[in-house]
Amino acid sequence: MSHNTFGHLFRMTTWGESHGPAIGCIVDGCPPGIPLTAEEIQVDLNRRKPGQSRYTTQRREADAVEILSGVFTDGDGPTVTTGTPISLLIRNTDQRSKDYGDIKAAFRPGHADYAYWAKYGIRDYRGGGRSSARETAARVAAGAIARKVLGPSVVIRGALVQIGAMSIDRSRWDWETVSSNPFFSPDPGTVPEWAQHLDEVRKSGSSVGAVIEVIAEGVPAGLGAPLYAKLDQDLASAMMSINAVKGVEIGAGMAAAELTGEANADEIRIGPDGRPRFLSNNAGGILGGISTGQPIVCRFSVKPTSSILTPRHTIDAAGHETDIITKGRHDPCVGIRAVPVGEAMMALVLADHLLRHRAQCG
Amino acid sequence: MSHNTFGHLFRMTTWGESHGPAIGCIVDGCPPGIPLTAEEIQVDLNRRKPGQSRYTTQRREADAVEILSGVFTDGDGPTVTTGTPISLLIRNTDQRSKDYGDIKAAFRPGHADYAYWAKYGIRDYRGGGRSSARETAARVAAGAIARKVLGPSVVIRGALVQIGAMSIDRSRWDWETVSSNPFFSPDPGTVPEWAQHLDEVRKSGSSVGAVIEVIAEGVPAGLGAPLYAKLDQDLASAMMSINAVKGVEIGAGMAAAELTGEANADEIRIGPDGRPRFLSNNAGGILGGISTGQPIVCRFSVKPTSSILTPRHTIDAAGHETDIITKGRHDPCVGIRAVPVGEAMMALVLADHLLRHRAQCG
Amino acid sequence: MSHNTFGHLFRMTTWGESHGPAIGCIVDGCPPGIPLTAEEIQVDLNRRKPGQSRYTTQRREADAVEILSGVFTDGDGPTVTTGTPISLLIRNTDQRSKDYGDIKAAFRPGHADYAYWAKYGIRDYRGGGRSSARETAARVAAGAIARKVLGPSVVIRGALVQIGAMSIDRSRWDWETVSSNPFFSPDPGTVPEWAQHLDEVRKSGSSVGAVIEVIAEGVPAGLGAPLYAKLDQDLASAMMSINAVKGVEIGAGMAAAELTGEANADEIRIGPDGRPRFLSNNAGGILGGISTGQPIVCRFSVKPTSSILTPRHTIDAAGHETDIITKGRHDPCVGIRAVPVGEAMMALVLADHLLRHRAQCG
Amino acid sequence: MSHNTFGHLFRMTTWGESHGPAIGCIVDGCPPGIPLTAEEIQVDLNRRKPGQSRYTTQRREADAVEILSGVFTDGDGPTVTTGTPISLLIRNTDQRSKDYGDIKAAFRPGHADYAYWAKYGIRDYRGGGRSSARETAARVAAGAIARKVLGPSVVIRGALVQIGAMSIDRSRWDWETVSSNPFFSPDPGTVPEWAQHLDEVRKSGSSVGAVIEVIAEGVPAGLGAPLYAKLDQDLASAMMSINAVKGVEIGAGMAAAELTGEANADEIRIGPDGRPRFLSNNAGGILGGISTGQPIVCRFSVKPTSSILTPRHTIDAAGHETDIITKGRHDPCVGIRAVPVGEAMMALVLADHLLRHRAQCG
Repeated sequence: MSHNTFGHLFRMTTWGESHGPAIGCIVDGCPPGIPLTAEEIQVDLNRRKPGQSRYTTQRREADAVEILSGVFTDGDGPTVTTGTPISLLIRNTDQRSKDYGDIKAAFRPGHADYAYWAKYGIRDYRGGGRSSARETAARVAAGAIARKVLGPSVVIRGALVQIGAMSIDRSRWDWETVSSNPFFSPDPGTVPEWAQHLDEVRKSGSSVGAVIEVIAEGVPAGLGAPLYAKLDQDLASAMMSINAVKGVEIGAGMAAAELTGEANADEIRIGPDGRPRFLSNNAGGILGGISTGQPIVCRFSVKPTSSILTPRHTIDAAGHETDIITKGRHDPCVGIRAVPVGEAMMALVLADHLLRHRAQCG
Repeated sequence: MSHNTFGHLFRMTTWGESHGPAIGCIVDGCPPGIPLTAEEIQVDLNRRKPGQSRYTTQRREADAVEILSGVFTDGDGPTVTTGTPISLLIRNTDQRSKDYGDIKAAFRPGHADYAYWAKYGIRDYRGGGRSSARETAARVAAGAIARKVLGPSVVIRGALVQIGAMSIDRSRWDWETVSSNPFFSPDPGTVPEWAQHLDEVRKSGSSVGAVIEVIAEGVPAGLGAPLYAKLDQDLASAMMSINAVKGVEIGAGMAAAELTGEANADEIRIGPDGRPRFLSNNAGGILGGISTGQPIVCRFSVKPTSSILTPRHTIDAAGHETDIITKGRHDPCVGIRAVPVGEAMMALVLADHLLRHRAQCG
Repeated sequence: MSHNTFGHLFRMTTWGESHGPAIGCIVDGCPPGIPLTAEEIQVDLNRRKPGQSRYTTQRREADAVEILSGVFTDGDGPTVTTGTPISLLIRNTDQRSKDYGDIKAAFRPGHADYAYWAKYGIRDYRGGGRSSARETAARVAAGAIARKVLGPSVVIRGALVQIGAMSIDRSRWDWETVSSNPFFSPDPGTVPEWAQHLDEVRKSGSSVGAVIEVIAEGVPAGLGAPLYAKLDQDLASAMMSINAVKGVEIGAGMAAAELTGEANADEIRIGPDGRPRFLSNNAGGILGGISTGQPIVCRFSVKPTSSILTPRHTIDAAGHETDIITKGRHDPCVGIRAVPVGEAMMALVLADHLLRHRAQCG
Repeated sequence: MSHNTFGHLFRMTTWGESHGPAIGCIVDGCPPGIPLTAEEIQVDLNRRKPGQSRYTTQRREADAVEILSGVFTDGDGPTVTTGTPISLLIRNTDQRSKDYGDIKAAFRPGHADYAYWAKYGIRDYRGGGRSSARETAARVAAGAIARKVLGPSVVIRGALVQIGAMSIDRSRWDWETVSSNPFFSPDPGTVPEWAQHLDEVRKSGSSVGAVIEVIAEGVPAGLGAPLYAKLDQDLASAMMSINAVKGVEIGAGMAAAELTGEANADEIRIGPDGRPRFLSNNAGGILGGISTGQPIVCRFSVKPTSSILTPRHTIDAAGHETDIITKGRHDPCVGIRAVPVGEAMMALVLADHLLRHRAQCG
């Protein structure tokens, strides 16, 4: 987990800027013999794709993925992974030839503009360059491959559980609902409310934050490692690496502080299948950094999109004070499209740890 | 960040179990020529040391650190680092020769017992073995060296901001107070309340969680890197690697979800010193994964100690249902001693990124 | 140095197969602000390009490189690196649609066929797939960027010093000669002899091995690190990672065994410039894993091309004994084109260590 | 492979200086449940131990290893690894309190003195500090654990095949002989000749180089990976990381340059056991970076000990020219004791790749 590479054994290295010719990634360490087609990856990419409702950016990108290496078809057989690096390419097709004069000259508050400039002395300011959320398409593509490594017994699903101050009612949680509304909400009751709120936000040129929850079921006990390779540590790293994320929680999360030892301890019984059955899941499926066989539960917050129409105070590279507004095509709630991204990161972490566990413990 | 190693260029590899002869770590990648003595490291270790008040475990450990390598004194000069690996050793001196029959036979809910057994098929159950919070002494020792790498211009301080449901009043924040109460509270108003509450918790053999906040001031802009080496990502990884941590926040944290874009954007002006001055710090000092020069603000929650006197349902390795209570010497609120640990992890991340930044950007 | 990634701070991750649509690499960790164009990279690629004389494979590849990310032009300025990952793409254009029936069915002795099959259970047998020397184009492209990081004061040059049993006469070494003959020979006296010998080898469908020497001048003292990051260790790793390499030497190399301590010790005097001047260079510019400021001298042997027209005994995947000959377009001496590859690997190792040294020692 | 850590999944981090209180290492990533005692490690350490004949340094070190973590005995069972890091400690007991004035003041030619000083600006000059061959004791201890991971079916043996210009007669190779002479020679015919030669070398205060060959039998096909994790690449890195090594060869090695394609191609037949049988082993058991099931054959040269009694020209830190002789206790042929070190490095590489292969290919 360094530079632009994520993962230890199963790993992804991403590249590309928002307004360059393409973005992409290399997925390395993939086991051989896994059937894989671009169409399968495309399914996940399409869930993240912009422009699918009025609640996301109107930038039109096909996000069509090409597999350039690492797969092979022998005769009439299916296309399978060969164990060598899989290079994925996604072309940028809808970079508007707009005038970037405004954001070239001044640092947009809340954006990475100033930080990049302070670090590198140069920045590709077109559409945020490397800091654009467009990079997350590469994650979703890599995550689709990670899912195939994990196999069908591991089910990873995400949902939006909060927009602004409006949370879902967990008693109404329904996974079927998630795919039938533009917010990935698992609670049908929130959909009209969120729609009305986001319409207002969008029309006013404002934005709002969100909380995403990702759950992995069917994860075997034993993944992770005691220290500095903890499963929850790598999940925290994974989720915090997503643009605009400001907080990560496992299980009870920040609220664990309010629990007593009695309430927190997930008691264990033997289930009807003869296997351990936990009576609660404050641990979020992880104890001592290692999975317990319970569902892995991870939440993260996404701050509101920093591109807004209300003028904000800022400075320029010359050190002059100025004000800026950010026009263009933006997500009023960038957290919505973070749902498939969070799923992808969960898949990447689990696939990596599956291989790591197999290496050490056979 | 893998196996038992944390960090990329400035890195720490820890080893040892709660009831073995010793614990320790290797600090590798340290720049040469930095004055360093065991006494300096001891100052930080003593802040984490158990048995300093009735609110922490009564295990008595001197936590005396020895430096076995990596430093040198040439003639009359000071002892300085040589650039080679620094091996630190801390002997375990107060391992009680108690009967471990109870925890050998059954998995303590909330502890790592079951997860270790599921992963490795064997576990050193004495005092938690490798999963014991005793390992954090090695972190604090390494963190003391990291602070020296950062130099005096970077000030890292932590505080306890919440115990159970009882939060501090931030308007009363006073750094001087932190070192004058056994809770590392920055709010003198909470001290008697927390003392009374923890006395009750302790007497009833229960436990309670907490939230720690660590702030680094004087960090130059430019540390971190866009993707998979984000400063906030590595902080999330660092804090989540601490035992019992369930949530990590940067700046506005989980509450960033509730902000509008207007409220979230930390506006920028030019300060009296001619440098950028941010009018708020929702970003927690990090934008796009890179430090901005503002204070780095990180919070994390610690779950309640899982060793409690109330019986809890569990199973044993043979798959039988049973109940267990955990006697012995335990912290009623393990979050208290996590304050210096959080500071150490902050120092380790920043020292690593200082070297990484210097490597790439000179 | 693992998976398909080489380097620690300045690093290259390569991908692609001989007969896929393209090959390429990501160069990550590059310092920002370095002027870089595809044309500059092309210069090095052209030196490795096949089909430039009758002594190399007749496959026709333009080896035209595209830069897909990591560079930016701000207004009228030059195109420079931004510090983000540089994605390089080289399309395969001359994959013959030949019948691969022969090598699909049987393992070519000396080639990686059997080993890949034993490892992965599947292999892209077209032109060697991932094991093809075509991958080295990506190295040369990345090496061109590494050279720019090192700057003009570091001069890296390679030469062919032996073909088969025919060695150069070192007393005639002339760097100018290297670029004026198809063998990269530094000794004009060998050129007609080698030409005659290789013509015979080529016509008979045979092949022959070679030894390459790469020398880096102007490398500052202090690069490398004592253990497991030794400069010579990383050079050995780098050169042995090139296809068909079977031996690596630093300085006196294998012949160091025959020296006495007196002969081996490179004595030191003060040169006219006031800097250390070594009276010999058995060390090859490296002592204790760290550069001394002398020229870095590295040699490696390349085995003969395994694709030959003489039938060889082998087996097929079903375990049947058979014989095989390898038709097609092959280098009679693959060592020739390894010269620019060796230079590239030297540049990659030195650029990585330059950054690593700057990180630790400022 | 960076800093002071070697290996990717099964890895060793060493620390310590020649004249500090101790040296040691952490072995991380070891599979759980492997019986392991200090006595087993000691067997290998004793083979490297100094002072066992008049042909090695007379420094007296017990090289007694302590296991400080990572193993556990449950009741009456054997002591086994737990999967957590194994910390090994070897105390230095025979550091002579000699006057280091000579080597403090001037750089010994052939030694790392100047290079360390150029890099770090400081060096622990006592006995070579970190650059001392004493560090190799930690490698041998870690290698003993690696052998246990590999299991009894993998047999790793080394031998000295050349001292100075005197090579063994390979037709007389006898593994039994290796343990019955002070040179690890596999050729009984060389023993009296080598003894006479080394006596002369020793008495004259000179030194001589050597070549070591290490062979691993029983290695399954499939270990290694195509690029930048090649088995031969990691072996080259491993052997070149040993002090004083200047060349590394796999199979035919540097002489591969002289072979024709016909001679080089190791032909394959089906053996009486139904498995592939290679008719030669120019490949040294590795093709395309991946093991073929043949014996892995690796050779490396060791330069003569740089500590000699003949005065050599050198300079001091102030830039003055001077001469130096190196008194003290030294190996006249440091290559002798490199035999068990080479075996250990082979074991470490193979154990690491065994786990890596299991991770990816199951």
